[in-house]
Amino acid sequence: MFSDRFDQLVQALRILPSVGPKSAQRMALHLIMKNREGAVGLAHALNEATSYIHECSICHSLTEDEVCNICASHDRDAHLLCVVESPADVMAIEQSGSFRGKYHVLGGHLSPLDGIGPDEIGIPYLVQRLSDGNITEVILATNATVEGQATAHYLVEATKHLPVQMTRIAQGVPQGGELEYVDSHTLSQAVHNRMRMK
Amino acid sequence: MFSDRFDQLVQALRILPSVGPKSAQRMALHLIMKNREGAVGLAHALNEATSYIHECSICHSLTEDEVCNICASHDRDAHLLCVVESPADVMAIEQSGSFRGKYHVLGGHLSPLDGIGPDEIGIPYLVQRLSDGNITEVILATNATVEGQATAHYLVEATKHLPVQMTRIAQGVPQGGELEYVDSHTLSQAVHNRMRMK
Repeated sequence: MFSDRFDQLVQALRILPSVGPKSAQRMALHLIMKNREGAVGLAHALNEATSYIHECSICHSLTEDEVCNICASHDRDAHLLCVVESPADVMAIEQSGSFRGKYHVLGGHLSPLDGIGPDEIGIPYLVQRLSDGNITEVILATNATVEGQATAHYLVEATKHLPVQMTRIAQGVPQGGELEYVDSHTLSQAVHNRMRMK
Repeated sequence: MFSDRFDQLVQALRILPSVGPKSAQRMALHLIMKNREGAVGLAHALNEATSYIHECSICHSLTEDEVCNICASHDRDAHLLCVVESPADVMAIEQSGSFRGKYHVLGGHLSPLDGIGPDEIGIPYLVQRLSDGNITEVILATNATVEGQATAHYLVEATKHLPVQMTRIAQGVPQGGELEYVDSHTLSQAVHNRMRMK
């Protein structure tokens, strides 16, 4: 609209998730009109982050070092391993404050139709990691989607020969969930997996 | 969370309008995990835009040149001037395709409590522009807010001595508006400004 570089900025902002043409325009105007310093800072942060952040060589989460904070930490329980699909899941679980073990990021889930088999998400490497004998329990925290479930089941099969306990995060009604609004599949799971109280 | 640079990127993304901590985190993860090339492109676009885009020396809209496309164009009616608060308004009116004249961007509205008087939004310069005699009608398209209205009224007063027709964009029920959901102030304006049909 105003100039080529303005249009290029609007276009570039559209790569952000859930930013459509209108929002991108509003963001571009906001940056140019009201916060140029912030825009320059954002450009710098983007360049720095893309240059220095890479996968942890042990767990495949994100880090700037050879090994991430969590893998390097001696305060975390090295016998407990939580397997997740992506670094976003590591973040979510860390923010819940409910886990003090280590992680393993698959970087996806099994999806044969898309050509994603066990090798593509590094399952042989995970099995290797489990064979080293230090880990006694694996919590399978892949998503509660069809692919996440299939990946969890596959992992149980693939580690049958190892003396490692495999658990799956609980599925049921979310906290604060009103039964009236919970989908029937979740509800049937919740009834099936009911827990004894007395 | 993962590293300092990751946190800095999340922080930097929060300067974008309506991006809270959760969205910023999601954006940062998306960029780092799925679109590094896009992130580098966005950084480049931000640097380019902040370096080259500035105010048009005539209308104060945005341009990369001395004078913006619209001011430089010979196809636009130089007798008609639309006064708006910001370049975003120029964009909105251009996108409506309803105006073929030139623009004047005030860069704000009168707001005595915030110390923004006529000088701060360049009203003397606008009056000067109108005194040059080329312009026959000024369409006041400041926002339909209290400040926008006050600014429009002030402009009418400030240009009383000039032989220029001053008009205000119409206010009433928006297209597709159902009366039931239109606020009463708008409705009373719409009744007051009713238009004769026969």
